[in-house]
Amino acid sequence: MNDFQALLRKRRSIREFQDREVPLELVREIIRETCLAPSAMNGQPWRFSIVTNREKIRQLSDESKSNLLSDLQADPSSPIKRYEDMLRNPGFNVFYNAPCVVYLCGPSGLGSLDVDCSLAACYFMFAAAARNLGTCWIGLGAHLRDSAILKDLGITGDLQIVAPIIVGYPKAIPEASERSEPVILGILQ
Amino acid sequence: MNDFQALLRKRRSIREFQDREVPLELVREIIRETCLAPSAMNGQPWRFSIVTNREKIRQLSDESKSNLLSDLQADPSSPIKRYEDMLRNPGFNVFYNAPCVVYLCGPSGLGSLDVDCSLAACYFMFAAAARNLGTCWIGLGAHLRDSAILKDLGITGDLQIVAPIIVGYPKAIPEASERSEPVILGILQ
Repeated sequence: MNDFQALLRKRRSIREFQDREVPLELVREIIRETCLAPSAMNGQPWRFSIVTNREKIRQLSDESKSNLLSDLQADPSSPIKRYEDMLRNPGFNVFYNAPCVVYLCGPSGLGSLDVDCSLAACYFMFAAAARNLGTCWIGLGAHLRDSAILKDLGITGDLQIVAPIIVGYPKAIPEASERSEPVILGILQ
Repeated sequence: MNDFQALLRKRRSIREFQDREVPLELVREIIRETCLAPSAMNGQPWRFSIVTNREKIRQLSDESKSNLLSDLQADPSSPIKRYEDMLRNPGFNVFYNAPCVVYLCGPSGLGSLDVDCSLAACYFMFAAAARNLGTCWIGLGAHLRDSAILKDLGITGDLQIVAPIIVGYPKAIPEASERSEPVILGILQ
């Protein structure tokens, strides 16, 4: 149990990485462990696409930024507004220059998709932390529409991206962030 | 890392429990660790309601079953159909007679609620497994509408149940279930 608590402290959202590649075999190991996650009716709907090419990662960042900015233009009251300055900064990479991005996705119409892929994402992040890798779920990185880009990733039209996760060796592992006290609404004994 | 792999194998969906109560203090510890989960913009929207009273758990099961059956009556083509026989069996407890149920819930309107609470549920299930407790996410147990019952649980009208999780000491820990080979859609190197 102490080991789990150590792992809990190690699993932090990491946005600064060493200049060191992540071996593809390690990513495959993490994905194998990810597939042990539970899913609604054991549907295992998760699919994975792996990017370790830094130039491609930059292009994926640019594609997502540009789509977010057009969404903001279409709906200026969108919550994306708070990211506008970052998104307009050409130097800003939504993936924080991580050496690896893994997309977790699954069938668009599936009611349990968000839940199933979030459970898998949690497994992914722990399995990476157990290997001293840092991760962060990058919501801003999910907005891909260009069909050539999606085809490159193997993400066909029937699939939806739930979790883009960056992976790399952390520059540092920050202290556990502040958490609010648990809110326990009721206890029926 | 070996310890994490041991934990991965220990975290199984458990539906048969020893006749042994779960100390409330242990549930509180698990909830404290659950709150270390990541969440969209660190929103930490999760709330918890704990039930360790077996009679109340049976009532919660009955309430959920009866609502599911009326939903099925209203929409006979609903996917609930596959559970109809179980739901009509008065002896069937959706919570598998577990000694403890914890509801994870949060603000109804929040776009990231399913994702945030699923990540928390994953933490909850690992934190329980690290204490030799078994868990299972019981989707069929989420269908509570009776206002007196919801009030008892402290679940106010602005909140939505995402994950009802049963907790108890497992009768046995089954072998890791069969998993499909990971589907890797693309690798961009």
